[in-house]
Amino acid sequence: MMFHDRPRFPRGFRTASRNCGLKPSGKDLSVFVSDVDAAAAAVFTRNHFPGAPVVLGRETIRGGVLRAIVVNSKVSNVATGERGLAHARRMAEAAAGALGTTPDRVLVSSTGVIGRPLPIEKIEQGLQGIAADLVDDPLVGAEGIMTTDTHPKAVSMGVGDVTITWVAKGSGMIEPNMATMLSYIMTDARITAPELDRLLREAVDVSFNMLSVDSDTSTSDTCVLLANGLAGLPDRDAFRKALTMGSLRMTEMLARDGEGATKLLRATVRGAANQGEARRIAKSLVNSPLVKTMVHGADPNVGRVLMAIGKCFECAIRPAATDVWVNGQKVVQGGERTAFEDSAVRAALANDTTDIVVTLGVGSAEATAFGCDLSRGYIEENAAYYSS
Amino acid sequence: MMFHDRPRFPRGFRTASRNCGLKPSGKDLSVFVSDVDAAAAAVFTRNHFPGAPVVLGRETIRGGVLRAIVVNSKVSNVATGERGLAHARRMAEAAAGALGTTPDRVLVSSTGVIGRPLPIEKIEQGLQGIAADLVDDPLVGAEGIMTTDTHPKAVSMGVGDVTITWVAKGSGMIEPNMATMLSYIMTDARITAPELDRLLREAVDVSFNMLSVDSDTSTSDTCVLLANGLAGLPDRDAFRKALTMGSLRMTEMLARDGEGATKLLRATVRGAANQGEARRIAKSLVNSPLVKTMVHGADPNVGRVLMAIGKCFECAIRPAATDVWVNGQKVVQGGERTAFEDSAVRAALANDTTDIVVTLGVGSAEATAFGCDLSRGYIEENAAYYSS
Repeated sequence: MMFHDRPRFPRGFRTASRNCGLKPSGKDLSVFVSDVDAAAAAVFTRNHFPGAPVVLGRETIRGGVLRAIVVNSKVSNVATGERGLAHARRMAEAAAGALGTTPDRVLVSSTGVIGRPLPIEKIEQGLQGIAADLVDDPLVGAEGIMTTDTHPKAVSMGVGDVTITWVAKGSGMIEPNMATMLSYIMTDARITAPELDRLLREAVDVSFNMLSVDSDTSTSDTCVLLANGLAGLPDRDAFRKALTMGSLRMTEMLARDGEGATKLLRATVRGAANQGEARRIAKSLVNSPLVKTMVHGADPNVGRVLMAIGKCFECAIRPAATDVWVNGQKVVQGGERTAFEDSAVRAALANDTTDIVVTLGVGSAEATAFGCDLSRGYIEENAAYYSS
Repeated sequence: MMFHDRPRFPRGFRTASRNCGLKPSGKDLSVFVSDVDAAAAAVFTRNHFPGAPVVLGRETIRGGVLRAIVVNSKVSNVATGERGLAHARRMAEAAAGALGTTPDRVLVSSTGVIGRPLPIEKIEQGLQGIAADLVDDPLVGAEGIMTTDTHPKAVSMGVGDVTITWVAKGSGMIEPNMATMLSYIMTDARITAPELDRLLREAVDVSFNMLSVDSDTSTSDTCVLLANGLAGLPDRDAFRKALTMGSLRMTEMLARDGEGATKLLRATVRGAANQGEARRIAKSLVNSPLVKTMVHGADPNVGRVLMAIGKCFECAIRPAATDVWVNGQKVVQGGERTAFEDSAVRAALANDTTDIVVTLGVGSAEATAFGCDLSRGYIEENAAYYSS
């Protein structure tokens, strides 16, 4: 089980991406295609205002079989009503036509501004003849789904004969719940749709669902797993581990490239009363603007870590049993600041990854959450996102 | 019932503030004093790591009687263990000595950096002879309790013969729960401590507890109400209304002066299933970094409002019944973007107050939350707060 140096596709998967005129330049339309039918499972945003593609996707995934994914960036097709749903269906039909399959085997995604009508004609035109562009480099498809991401994101792993490939985009409006922004996982393992569903939920639970760039949950979050079976039956246990490991790797890539982010922030909580509380407190740490700005400025203002733990009112906390480490430096013992040197903690925080480890001494549950620092860049990108 | 143009004290209240060397310059120590015993009630932070002054304050307020409040800024005396509690007691003793009362009648507050030892000797020296400085201008005391506030905050109202005066500080680490950062309310009305407690909780519930600058709950939040009785019995109903009205006014002052804030953001949710859900959704709106940056940039990216409503997974939401107004412009009808002109919404957002009104069409509960925009200024202040 190992990551490839350069991401590659499992057997039978290819991708293409184009500019169809949604962005002034740069790719804004991608397809991911399997040569043969693939068993599929997906999880979607829990936001009460899901985009039209999510509404359609929930219907499509019930079949448990996919041949293709079609995605546009720049416009998310959310809050667009019946017309939006009709546009999403036309997008599936156009992709099915161009790729030689049926619309019920095409998962549609859109990402970008909420509330603008989808320029469906541009997308339909853009899909014409796209089969001719299909290549075996996942990064080509990853490019077409980017919004404010600074680089395309794909990773892949070998597990015996089987390959698993993750392609995703993240950046802002990212505290996924049941899924991440847009994350496509492809494998040539042979696994049934119900089992894929179980495996996907298990992996997502500790990875994408523990990610938060800004505590805002997108209306478009989609995470889908396709298995086309071309490499045969996998070692079940190794596959399961690999799926989680790669999902964690992709989660960290998304966190590190959050809007305006300059650092990865990882918060691990141990000794919590139960899983729910461990997750709640770890999330509180990566979501606290004051912890995030402390990490950004490498400012040893570690009292903020206690604040962010302590504001989880409903969780069992024993101040006298609470210890905290920041990148290996013990900064709190028994709820009190240790006699650390500011300069040592400042140096530890200068690292491009900040690990905050908290032991609560209450129970035995543990969880890790993934986030990033909060910088002027986040403000700059989001104060004029719609207008730019 | 009316606000005074310039804040004044109720009968028998005075204040003094000094620089005692905690800040390089500027006031860092204040006292608020009643000439006679005052009935008192208080609410404190629900953070699991309360500062030493909060621990002591909970003990002090049990007596239901106060003569004075003593407050220092710059160092919060939090996460300082037994030594911190001993320092808080010494601070009460020093204030009692200087003001001619007993320590059990002095409420202590500290605000500033978490985890640094309190320079108690400087405070003890600073309190010597402070009775000679007492004046009747609430803004003098308000100055000594500021941290990153850009101006001292006090308001007062007349209710018949009775005066009520609010002095507070806010700025960052502000999503109070059961109280705000530091908020002192003084009145010359004659009211018993148990009734004060009831009235205070009622007023705080719709005002300070609906405030969020940054979703972070301070370890020092304290809101105390003193009634020295010198103006006799108030009109009960008018007093109750005035207490809430003034607390709302002060809440808006705190929101508008949040760290880096350039605008007041007010979110009103109507037609929710119940109070709890109305409050939850209103808070979600003022806490969303993407809504806050939209307000900051006056960017008509109003889809973000739906996102922030929709991420309240546990609340009853009917997209088809959801309408949204931004400063009077209807931007969402039945969960869909209306055909608004970008320029009209951009102009509406240019106002120094942004009112977001949401009608859910689910039930009849209503709530308003108070916050501010998110700017580069917040990042700048907080990336080096400890070190500066």
